[in-house]
Amino acid sequence: MDQKTISQDILLRMVKSFVKNEVAPYDMDIDHTRSYVNDLWSKVKENDFLSLMLPKEYGGAGFDGRTTAKVINEIAKGNASLAVTLEGHFKSVDQIVKYGSDELKNEYLPQAKNRVIAFSMTEPSGGSNPMGINSHAEKSGDKWIINGDKIMITNGGLAEIYCVLVKTAPTELSFFVVDNEMEGFEYGKQENFLGLTGVPVGEIVMNNIEVDESHLLGKVGMGKEIGDSAHDDARVLMGAVLTGIMEHELDLVTDYATHRKAIDTPIIQMQGIQRKVADIAISKETTKLLYQKAAWMKDHGQDYEEEAAMAKAYGSRSAVKAGDDSLQILGGYGYSLDYPIEHLIRDARAMEIAEGTVEKMRTAIALKEAESRA
Amino acid sequence: MDQKTISQDILLRMVKSFVKNEVAPYDMDIDHTRSYVNDLWSKVKENDFLSLMLPKEYGGAGFDGRTTAKVINEIAKGNASLAVTLEGHFKSVDQIVKYGSDELKNEYLPQAKNRVIAFSMTEPSGGSNPMGINSHAEKSGDKWIINGDKIMITNGGLAEIYCVLVKTAPTELSFFVVDNEMEGFEYGKQENFLGLTGVPVGEIVMNNIEVDESHLLGKVGMGKEIGDSAHDDARVLMGAVLTGIMEHELDLVTDYATHRKAIDTPIIQMQGIQRKVADIAISKETTKLLYQKAAWMKDHGQDYEEEAAMAKAYGSRSAVKAGDDSLQILGGYGYSLDYPIEHLIRDARAMEIAEGTVEKMRTAIALKEAESRA
Amino acid sequence: MDQKTISQDILLRMVKSFVKNEVAPYDMDIDHTRSYVNDLWSKVKENDFLSLMLPKEYGGAGFDGRTTAKVINEIAKGNASLAVTLEGHFKSVDQIVKYGSDELKNEYLPQAKNRVIAFSMTEPSGGSNPMGINSHAEKSGDKWIINGDKIMITNGGLAEIYCVLVKTAPTELSFFVVDNEMEGFEYGKQENFLGLTGVPVGEIVMNNIEVDESHLLGKVGMGKEIGDSAHDDARVLMGAVLTGIMEHELDLVTDYATHRKAIDTPIIQMQGIQRKVADIAISKETTKLLYQKAAWMKDHGQDYEEEAAMAKAYGSRSAVKAGDDSLQILGGYGYSLDYPIEHLIRDARAMEIAEGTVEKMRTAIALKEAESRA
Amino acid sequence: MDQKTISQDILLRMVKSFVKNEVAPYDMDIDHTRSYVNDLWSKVKENDFLSLMLPKEYGGAGFDGRTTAKVINEIAKGNASLAVTLEGHFKSVDQIVKYGSDELKNEYLPQAKNRVIAFSMTEPSGGSNPMGINSHAEKSGDKWIINGDKIMITNGGLAEIYCVLVKTAPTELSFFVVDNEMEGFEYGKQENFLGLTGVPVGEIVMNNIEVDESHLLGKVGMGKEIGDSAHDDARVLMGAVLTGIMEHELDLVTDYATHRKAIDTPIIQMQGIQRKVADIAISKETTKLLYQKAAWMKDHGQDYEEEAAMAKAYGSRSAVKAGDDSLQILGGYGYSLDYPIEHLIRDARAMEIAEGTVEKMRTAIALKEAESRA
Repeated sequence: MDQKTISQDILLRMVKSFVKNEVAPYDMDIDHTRSYVNDLWSKVKENDFLSLMLPKEYGGAGFDGRTTAKVINEIAKGNASLAVTLEGHFKSVDQIVKYGSDELKNEYLPQAKNRVIAFSMTEPSGGSNPMGINSHAEKSGDKWIINGDKIMITNGGLAEIYCVLVKTAPTELSFFVVDNEMEGFEYGKQENFLGLTGVPVGEIVMNNIEVDESHLLGKVGMGKEIGDSAHDDARVLMGAVLTGIMEHELDLVTDYATHRKAIDTPIIQMQGIQRKVADIAISKETTKLLYQKAAWMKDHGQDYEEEAAMAKAYGSRSAVKAGDDSLQILGGYGYSLDYPIEHLIRDARAMEIAEGTVEKMRTAIALKEAESRA
Repeated sequence: MDQKTISQDILLRMVKSFVKNEVAPYDMDIDHTRSYVNDLWSKVKENDFLSLMLPKEYGGAGFDGRTTAKVINEIAKGNASLAVTLEGHFKSVDQIVKYGSDELKNEYLPQAKNRVIAFSMTEPSGGSNPMGINSHAEKSGDKWIINGDKIMITNGGLAEIYCVLVKTAPTELSFFVVDNEMEGFEYGKQENFLGLTGVPVGEIVMNNIEVDESHLLGKVGMGKEIGDSAHDDARVLMGAVLTGIMEHELDLVTDYATHRKAIDTPIIQMQGIQRKVADIAISKETTKLLYQKAAWMKDHGQDYEEEAAMAKAYGSRSAVKAGDDSLQILGGYGYSLDYPIEHLIRDARAMEIAEGTVEKMRTAIALKEAESRA
Repeated sequence: MDQKTISQDILLRMVKSFVKNEVAPYDMDIDHTRSYVNDLWSKVKENDFLSLMLPKEYGGAGFDGRTTAKVINEIAKGNASLAVTLEGHFKSVDQIVKYGSDELKNEYLPQAKNRVIAFSMTEPSGGSNPMGINSHAEKSGDKWIINGDKIMITNGGLAEIYCVLVKTAPTELSFFVVDNEMEGFEYGKQENFLGLTGVPVGEIVMNNIEVDESHLLGKVGMGKEIGDSAHDDARVLMGAVLTGIMEHELDLVTDYATHRKAIDTPIIQMQGIQRKVADIAISKETTKLLYQKAAWMKDHGQDYEEEAAMAKAYGSRSAVKAGDDSLQILGGYGYSLDYPIEHLIRDARAMEIAEGTVEKMRTAIALKEAESRA
Repeated sequence: MDQKTISQDILLRMVKSFVKNEVAPYDMDIDHTRSYVNDLWSKVKENDFLSLMLPKEYGGAGFDGRTTAKVINEIAKGNASLAVTLEGHFKSVDQIVKYGSDELKNEYLPQAKNRVIAFSMTEPSGGSNPMGINSHAEKSGDKWIINGDKIMITNGGLAEIYCVLVKTAPTELSFFVVDNEMEGFEYGKQENFLGLTGVPVGEIVMNNIEVDESHLLGKVGMGKEIGDSAHDDARVLMGAVLTGIMEHELDLVTDYATHRKAIDTPIIQMQGIQRKVADIAISKETTKLLYQKAAWMKDHGQDYEEEAAMAKAYGSRSAVKAGDDSLQILGGYGYSLDYPIEHLIRDARAMEIAEGTVEKMRTAIALKEAESRA
């Protein structure tokens, strides 16, 4: 993709065509095989999708937040797992752009066109309290020595570069960038989840990985800030994924309800079916408006934490409900592994757990509302 | 208001100040007394609020749909009944602008600054099938003679001018404009509803009212189209009212939850309270985005029926839920007639029934979704 | 009522007849006037309803928990406020039976046939933490001197005898029985609530009321236990009230939906209406089964705290939802003050707040579930 | 099992032990492998579970409806698929007991101890209108010749004997019993569903199967009545399965929430967790009471159609919600294929579709409510 000349319109047309021809036909295969079947992933790279939001100075197409989100939305209509894989990469690239030293940016951003970057906070010690992690980095001369174990990483196993949260002191959280080519880097166990089965989720183990000071993101102690920033980024794009899932469902249920008949009348004429179709459409539209507003705010330098949390929390809950309604419309067909609806529900449900639970988003939103009136 | 110079910003600042000083302090009084207490209504007229969306050529301020909706939103934060009273007037003015003959427009639109215009479809025969009405108009020379009984009219009793749906043939529905100064016009019974108690809802009786051909809206047989057009108009503004109600609730619950303590901790720190506050905030934000989008589409000449239906159907359901959550946060206080929350719930519930039930909106939305993919 | 001979069947037949002739016809009047219109209250006393669960040795009819609950259920079908008034009395009588000294029982229980007894915990200091109360009792010789202010008392103002929670030491909670004929007893402010408007809710003020040791319920320090016991009692009966409300709604909506037609077909044939009617019926049936089970367990001496909490928490939430569905079925009629549906919703909503919020019940239920498996 | 001496208590103790040792340990394996792993199925037969509700005169244990349902409930706590497999057999046996000729009963009921009997209505022509089926039986001498194709049969493939719905005239529906040993009987395609993966669901094809008159269930034209009767039977037992699923979930979530800590406090102490646990417990308890009541009514010869429909419709919806809450409590663990929660959700969702959709149950319930008041 030549970032110098391509317009947003052309990009979206290109993406739609790609989704129609290369993604949508393999949607169920990706789910069933838990991998990007065919040669889809190499085509993603060939089309330079990995760098579409990368600033032009590092060889990317430099598209803004709204366009990036729109592309994710379109891809999710074809297959949500692929869209989430890209989302995980984009949010990581964004943090390096925002917090990376010039040296780090010059080293890694040009690679972001071909090598997937992942973002990693969770550890086996578990829990939602980042202070509970055990990974740590110690200064040794002008190097940092990193040790630890990171799990449940989106794109873990696929990604080659990782932003990892570690302790640099007992109550100090910091982020470093490590690379799978570094000594001491090992891939660990892959997870086996119910939904978004196309997204690799895995573990990395770090044994005395040695990195330069330039691999520190921002400054020591900025762990929480950078984590929050990545969450905000991710949540906007997840709103876009969820919108895509619900658009996919609307395509399926309106088609079915228009052609399926009960005693000669298409079931779309039945009140009970209309109620469900309308509810799905409203859920889709409201989620779309939320992510679009959040992306607009991001592009305009505004604090979009609350809007991003809304897009993710409301969007995922709504998409689960929409999936349930879709299944009910299709009945036994909806429940069969031979039709796509059932995996759309599993995908939506997965998104409700990823990137912070609904409960945490709600806390963030409630406190923002209270603050804004204090 | 001098429509030539006033900007949207100035208007909104003026409206906010008006709401703060003249509306909000009387919110509970309006509800309890079922009238615009004090001299509020005369101040509404003095401030030329009745004509803010009236085209400039007829002496109005000529604000667009988005601005009008935003004003309604602001007023609803102070008192929803007043906002609905204005909404009922605006949607009627809009139909005369859109479908009136030049003669009719020149006669009535300049009066819209001082005399409320109402829109009236329902009859005692009831039902949601417009073909079930009994009111009728017969051509007699170059006049039409109108007879019939209209009930449950928003602003019925307050309004002086009425757009009325009648049959001009057994299966032909048409709209005429009648005036309370015409011979044969009588006011009937006023309704006594649970919510939006400040809004007069009443009946008119038409006994051989004679009107000129110019009083026909559009052409004979355009009854359904004009009714649908008024519904669309009203639903956008109702989305704005509902947003205002939820913003009012958010003000009340965040204030309460920040100051109310359970064993020394403000209850806003409790997970159960945060969940409710966040849900109210999300409902408010999504309803706001829906009405804003619908208003934008209207201003740009696009078909906004589906979006308007979403704003109304989703907004009213969400506002009822938001009111319920608000009440639960405030507990006994929420349930007391000495606090405003309880009437906000009643107001929201009223809006779910007015202008077409949720069920009908859902039918409209579902069929639009199916059509758009056919 | 002659407790020696009357059987449960005869009682229920008598109650049904009483409800049909003396209660149901005044249902809306009771709500609108906020009082037991007509001479209903004296008929309640004449029929000895106040003593139907009072043990026979104190002059009552001695009916068991299931029968008492069934009677409350039947009365609530006619008017929920009256049922709640009786419930408040019954739960108080029960605590005196359970915890009273022989002297106290001999003094007050025979009076329970004519004088309403109330139970009182809440204070203006508010909050759900009983330790936050300010009322207190000091031993002085062989007397206790009681001071304090109790608010939001069910039957406050109507009741003549009160079980009051006070501190007998800084962290010691105890219950005493006081009487409106005692020196230092004063009635305070009456509350004005949105629902159950027939139930008097008010305040009492105690200024140096002097009572004998026999007026202590149980022992000093048993405040929490007795409060919990009263809650359990009340919640079972509230389940019965809520069942009655939903049965009343079912009568109204099935009647309406069977006779109301949309284009010649009764609306009970429409899927959207059936869904709502079925949901109301299921909510009614499940609430009924819960309160019946809890009453059975009480009658058999089992711990019924969890089941009572379920009947109240689930029942009140379900009845609010059922009221909302009922209103939607009746549309504008449901919303009019000229029809009973609207007050049934307000009544159900009131019950969700009374006797502990839904949140507290859920805590109790969750901990019981965890304990039972520990 | 010696039906002459065994009591209900002994049976239940035996079943619980069987579930603990032979079923529960293989729960996830059954789901993942889509089969009764190990030698579970032969142990089910050895224990004579297939005949526990079969009347004693045909060699069964002759347990009543309540006991049978309780056994199904217990087995479902271990694995829902196994419980549904038994339910499908029991409802079929019940129809032969109820409608079979003496000859048929003497032929097949003694075999019901070892050979699974299935009930089959659905056809590829689909739809919920039984009149839309194509299978048919023609009288030829004193034989009936049966042709047709039946799909989505619970236990299809596993069962050896089938009650099949066919047309005996263009608008006449009747049931016949066919056997996999008959000439012209063929097994068809097996379905691959998202949940209850242990239950075989498959197709049979009938090519000129010839049966005696004795193989007709009831009389010709009784197809609808027998179908309804089987539905009622099945729905009670499905209520029992759903109860078992929710009990299984309660075991899992209370265990997790008691041991999992957030900053040193078990998460069962958090309001958000308690709310979910309580909701699951209430859903379980109400579903249990519904199926128990329906089974009691069946045992007492009462019309239990409405209660059975409630148990199934409400129970399945509630179990899906309970599964969703359970998943949310366990977070990522809930979503992992390495833990059982995720398949419990899939199982519950499957039950919402089987044996008539929620929509149809609601229609049945609503009409019963209206009738009972007519």
